[in-house]
Amino acid sequence: MPETNDFFLPIRIYIEDTDAGGIVFYANYLKYFERARTEFIRSLGFELRACMSDNINFVVHSIDLKYLRSAKLDEVVNVYAKVEGKGRTFMFFEQKVENELGEILVKGHVKVACVHFDTGKPRVLPVELLNKLDGLSEPSEV
Amino acid sequence: MPETNDFFLPIRIYIEDTDAGGIVFYANYLKYFERARTEFIRSLGFELRACMSDNINFVVHSIDLKYLRSAKLDEVVNVYAKVEGKGRTFMFFEQKVENELGEILVKGHVKVACVHFDTGKPRVLPVELLNKLDGLSEPSEV
Amino acid sequence: MPETNDFFLPIRIYIEDTDAGGIVFYANYLKYFERARTEFIRSLGFELRACMSDNINFVVHSIDLKYLRSAKLDEVVNVYAKVEGKGRTFMFFEQKVENELGEILVKGHVKVACVHFDTGKPRVLPVELLNKLDGLSEPSEV
Amino acid sequence: MPETNDFFLPIRIYIEDTDAGGIVFYANYLKYFERARTEFIRSLGFELRACMSDNINFVVHSIDLKYLRSAKLDEVVNVYAKVEGKGRTFMFFEQKVENELGEILVKGHVKVACVHFDTGKPRVLPVELLNKLDGLSEPSEV
Repeated sequence: MPETNDFFLPIRIYIEDTDAGGIVFYANYLKYFERARTEFIRSLGFELRACMSDNINFVVHSIDLKYLRSAKLDEVVNVYAKVEGKGRTFMFFEQKVENELGEILVKGHVKVACVHFDTGKPRVLPVELLNKLDGLSEPSEV
Repeated sequence: MPETNDFFLPIRIYIEDTDAGGIVFYANYLKYFERARTEFIRSLGFELRACMSDNINFVVHSIDLKYLRSAKLDEVVNVYAKVEGKGRTFMFFEQKVENELGEILVKGHVKVACVHFDTGKPRVLPVELLNKLDGLSEPSEV
Repeated sequence: MPETNDFFLPIRIYIEDTDAGGIVFYANYLKYFERARTEFIRSLGFELRACMSDNINFVVHSIDLKYLRSAKLDEVVNVYAKVEGKGRTFMFFEQKVENELGEILVKGHVKVACVHFDTGKPRVLPVELLNKLDGLSEPSEV
Repeated sequence: MPETNDFFLPIRIYIEDTDAGGIVFYANYLKYFERARTEFIRSLGFELRACMSDNINFVVHSIDLKYLRSAKLDEVVNVYAKVEGKGRTFMFFEQKVENELGEILVKGHVKVACVHFDTGKPRVLPVELLNKLDGLSEPSEV
């Protein structure tokens, strides 16, 4: 059975994540999204530090997010990273944060570009990664 | 002469802002945008802590950003916050980060909702703030 | 068998934790130490948000840390939180970060004071928490 | 008249700095201390990015801090960085955060080691920096 494209990472909300408004500071969801993407890529066999040693880096090209509800201190949220498209030099992710009731807190899209670590210029995704991404089946198809 | 709607805040890039890729971590630009919005609102006479005491809070509803170039350690960037629209309960900001050469590093739009601090429910913007926003002239009109 | 006083939390190092020096930024270890203390307290049955609702907060009074080695991107470190003493209004923690080889990266002591959430003034620790702390056995005694 | 060894940096407290307890999160003072040290070193003519290009980095060896009062949202604090000693490979800083009333919020000591950027091994401080530090007069002597 192929790996599914339905990856999520549970994340506990700590005091460091919150602000004086009593909720998670809006920039911190971008940390969660990046953690989930990193773990998804790791689940395919790619670690960021090893990539950097091979002169490969991943940088965010654009984001488009809606904040619907606030995560609260002490709760555990599930952070999803799903590849919804790719090109030779980039990946499109659909991402969301859900609470334990399945309510969506934040959702949106993140475009990640593959670049040379030293110059920052675009480069093609590693072929092994492209092959892994091609091998992912949609959860609905399983 | 009216205040212009062309606010920017110079921000120095510190080591805390960077990541192992040698560039500013993508979530940190949201901190800069929030600092610039805060200083813009402060320039109109509104401080966040005083607002909270009046049961007013501002939360981000949505963001839409493009990352074009990376800010570098030690440089000073100018972070703009321009109101491009408003409703009874929200403000639309056009925001960008420019380096000292005037190159745009990050740009996009941020919708900020006014909520009750205690419940998180939407509320109308303070009338004094609405009046101040109405009084802003476009830079091109000055 | 009693719970032991030998709590640790595994933490993955993400790009958000690192800086342009290629290592974890020194302030971020304080986040890890706080996460480990929070999970330790949670393991005793106390959640921070519930405490705040009861007008209880915990604030750091002093820290004394030595940085011996750097944590690296992608590695998992174990973060320890051990109560080495307590008073009516505070707890002393001995804390350390170890890598997977058991090498100590950062170690030191953190004094945490119990305060009233609303005023910030010192208050006695909840008696249930004191009892739980008294019931902890030293690992060497088990 | 020589430069004095009495450097401070004013820092505005933003929502990003605070936590759900309504005060500045304890790790964030380490960011402020690092910003002040960086600006102090910059005032002597040394920029961190240029140092890294010369294979020089500065890493924190140890910290010892007391938290006396909390900084609040919207206030401006003054963050001091004073060299109180140095060796061939390190600098000792006395640091504090004061509010606008001159009350000390956080104070302590930070030992910073000079290392090779690539290996992380200790190296002697740049001779030009040592000379600059020797040329600093104590404020009380001016």
